[in-house]
Amino acid sequence: MKVLVLNCGSSSLKYQLFDMTDESVLAKGLVERIGIDGARIKHVKTDRDPVVTDVPIPNHKKAIQLVLDRLLDPSCGVISSLDELAAAGHRVVHGGDRFATSVRIDSQVLKGIEEVVPLAPLHNPANLTGIKAMVEVLPQLPQVAVFDTAFHQTMPPRAFVYGIPYHYYSENRIRRYGFHGTSHYFVAYRAAEMLGRPVESLKIVTCHLGNGSSITAVDGGRSVDTTLGFGTVPGVLMGTRCGDVDPLVVLSVMEAEGMDTKAMSHVLHKESGVFGISGVSSDLRDVEEAAAKGNERAQLALDMLVYHIRKYIGAYAAAMGGLDAIVFTAGIGENGVDIRDAVCRDLEFLGARFAPEKNKVRGKEQIISADDSRVAIMVIPTNEELVIARDTVKLVLTR
Amino acid sequence: MKVLVLNCGSSSLKYQLFDMTDESVLAKGLVERIGIDGARIKHVKTDRDPVVTDVPIPNHKKAIQLVLDRLLDPSCGVISSLDELAAAGHRVVHGGDRFATSVRIDSQVLKGIEEVVPLAPLHNPANLTGIKAMVEVLPQLPQVAVFDTAFHQTMPPRAFVYGIPYHYYSENRIRRYGFHGTSHYFVAYRAAEMLGRPVESLKIVTCHLGNGSSITAVDGGRSVDTTLGFGTVPGVLMGTRCGDVDPLVVLSVMEAEGMDTKAMSHVLHKESGVFGISGVSSDLRDVEEAAAKGNERAQLALDMLVYHIRKYIGAYAAAMGGLDAIVFTAGIGENGVDIRDAVCRDLEFLGARFAPEKNKVRGKEQIISADDSRVAIMVIPTNEELVIARDTVKLVLTR
Repeated sequence: MKVLVLNCGSSSLKYQLFDMTDESVLAKGLVERIGIDGARIKHVKTDRDPVVTDVPIPNHKKAIQLVLDRLLDPSCGVISSLDELAAAGHRVVHGGDRFATSVRIDSQVLKGIEEVVPLAPLHNPANLTGIKAMVEVLPQLPQVAVFDTAFHQTMPPRAFVYGIPYHYYSENRIRRYGFHGTSHYFVAYRAAEMLGRPVESLKIVTCHLGNGSSITAVDGGRSVDTTLGFGTVPGVLMGTRCGDVDPLVVLSVMEAEGMDTKAMSHVLHKESGVFGISGVSSDLRDVEEAAAKGNERAQLALDMLVYHIRKYIGAYAAAMGGLDAIVFTAGIGENGVDIRDAVCRDLEFLGARFAPEKNKVRGKEQIISADDSRVAIMVIPTNEELVIARDTVKLVLTR
Repeated sequence: MKVLVLNCGSSSLKYQLFDMTDESVLAKGLVERIGIDGARIKHVKTDRDPVVTDVPIPNHKKAIQLVLDRLLDPSCGVISSLDELAAAGHRVVHGGDRFATSVRIDSQVLKGIEEVVPLAPLHNPANLTGIKAMVEVLPQLPQVAVFDTAFHQTMPPRAFVYGIPYHYYSENRIRRYGFHGTSHYFVAYRAAEMLGRPVESLKIVTCHLGNGSSITAVDGGRSVDTTLGFGTVPGVLMGTRCGDVDPLVVLSVMEAEGMDTKAMSHVLHKESGVFGISGVSSDLRDVEEAAAKGNERAQLALDMLVYHIRKYIGAYAAAMGGLDAIVFTAGIGENGVDIRDAVCRDLEFLGARFAPEKNKVRGKEQIISADDSRVAIMVIPTNEELVIARDTVKLVLTR
C-alpha cells in the first residue's frame, strides 16, 4: 500500500512516498517557488542522487503533476502506474477546536478547514490549495488531513484558556491551540516503546526544538499543555520568533515606534528570537560559533534558549505532578549537543541524571540519562510524515 | 527612633508610624480621595478604634499636614512633637535599572525617580508628589526611597531580557523589572530565619498572591527571576489582570475590536484575570463562593490560578536547579486555605510533602509541610512597611 504525504506551503510543496508494507520511504522531494520566477523541483529516489529540475511552476496543480511525473519517471521514479497510489495524506496546520483527530477529506472537512482560515491565515489556505489541486489531478484518490493542532485538543481548559475576558474564548475562539502536535505525539509514543512501558503510565515532557519550537506535557499519552498558543510565537525562544513576552511590552513597542498590529506581528515573527537577540543569525549553529568567539549577545541568545527550555521542563513536571521522561526532537533537539548538555545538567532535583558521555549523538535515537536515572532523558528523531502516512492508511482502510 | 512610612498613590496616602526601638507600629492610617470630592482620613492609634474625619483635602501637602496633626493629636496621637520623627521612608514603585537598593533621597535621587516615570507613568509621579509634599512640610526630615523593583535587580540577563530585537532592551530599557520586591525580600529572609538556615544556602520560591500577584525565585537570598515583568500584568492570573498571554492574542483582539493600545491596556489591567474569567468578581472569596454553588466559570478561574502557581513553582525550581522552600504571602497567600491546598497537593516529585492538617491557618506564620518534607512549605505574612522602616533607619544612621 503506497501513500503520498504532502505538506503544501503558499509557494512550496514537500512530499514523501511511503510503502506502508514496511513503512519505508520510496522517494521524497521538494517543489519551491511555486508561482514565482525561479521555480524548481528537487526529487530524491531513496539511496539515489537528487534530481533537480528548473521549470516554470505556475500553481500547485502543476506542482503536483510534476511530482507525479517524477514518481512515474522510468529513471528516477518508484511506481509504474498511478493506480499504485492508495491515498494521499496532507499536513494541515490548523484544525481549530473542530478537528481533534485526523480525518478523511470530504466536502464537509474542506468546509471545516476553510472555517479555520482566520486562525491560520497564511497556512490553511496553502494547505487547502494543495488538497484541491490533488483532487483536480486525481479525483478518485482518497485523501486524509492530519492537523498540527489535533493532538493538543486534549488540553484541559485551565491550560488553554487565557486570562483575558472569557467572551474572547467563548465567542472569538481565542485560546491556546498549540502546534507541532504530530511531532509531539510521535516522539511521546516512541519514547514509551523505547522504555518498554505503556504510554498511559508515563508523564513525558517532549521538546520539539527547531527553527520553530514547542514543548509539550504529555500525561498518559495525552497532551495536557504546550508552549505554542493561539499563534506560533510564545513559549521558548525560536529562530526569529520571540517566545514568551509580557503583553505590555507589545503595547509599549507599538506606542514607541508608532507600529500597527501588522508591523508588530512582523517583529514578533521575523525579527525576534535567536536572530533578534544575537544579531548574528537565526541558525543556532552560526550563533554557537559566534558565542564561542566571544560574542556576548550570541551567548545571551543561547543562555535564554536553554533557560526557557529548563523552565518549561520544570513547569510541566509540576503541571503533571511528576515526570518520567524528557524527550528532545527536531533539528536542535536531535543535533544540538551543547544545548542539550546545558539544559540537562542540574536536573537531579527532578530525578533526571544526565549522562554527558552518552550525549554526543546527532539525529538518532539514544537515551542520554544515566542508567540509574529515575527520569529518562532521550533523543528521538521526529517523523511527522510517517504519522501522516499511518493515519492515512488507518482512515482509508476503515472506511 | 520613630520612622514614618508613606505609600502615596495619585489620590491616596497610606502611612504607618514605627517605633524602631522595638519595631512596633504606634499608629497607621489612610487618606483617600485627595483632590476629589468626599476626601477623608482614617487614623488608627494601635489598639484603639479608628478615627475617621471627612474633610476637604486638595493636595498631598494638605494630606501630610493632616497626618502629622493626627499623630500629634492629644487624644488619638502618639507623639508630642514633630522632633520625635527621625525620618520618613517612601515606597516608590519603579526604580528602573538605576536603583538596585534603597537610597536616601536628595536632588539626584529625585531626578532619578523622575527619569523612570515613563516606565511607571501612573505610580512614580504619585510617589514623587508625596516625597515633595513631605519636603515642603518638614524640609529638614531625612527621607528614604524604597523601590518595589530593587530586589529584582539581581536577575541575570537570561531572565530579564525578552526575546524581541535586542535594541528594545539596550536603547528603550524594555526588560523584565519585576515588582513586589520588598515583599519577596521580606518573606524569603524570614523563611530562612524560621528554618534556622542561612538564606545564602537556600533556594526559595516566594508566592506573593493578592489582588496583584507575583512569584519569585530567590536563590541564595537574591531574586533570580520573577513573574511580573516590564509591566504588572504577566505571570499568574490576578484580580483583574490577565497573567501570561500569547502576544498574538493581544494583536488579534486589537484587530477584531478595533482597539488602540490604550484600550487594550485597559482590558489587560482592569477587565481580565479572575474577574474576566469568572464574570463574578475580582475578589477571590466571592469567586470561591460562586464556584461552590456550581458556577463553572468561577471554578475555571480558581483552576487557572492554582495551575499557574503550580507551573511557576516547577519552573523556578528548574531555574535554580533545586528547591528548599515554598512561601505563601499577601492576602490570598496568607488566607487562601483552599488555594494553598490545591497548589500544594501532588508536589511530592519536588520533595515537598504538604500537610493539609497544618494548612487551616490564616494570616500567621506557619509551616504547612510535613515534618519529614525535604522542601518546607510556609505561610509568612508579609510586612513591606517594616522593610521600608528598617531600610530608612539603616540609611539615616549610616550617613
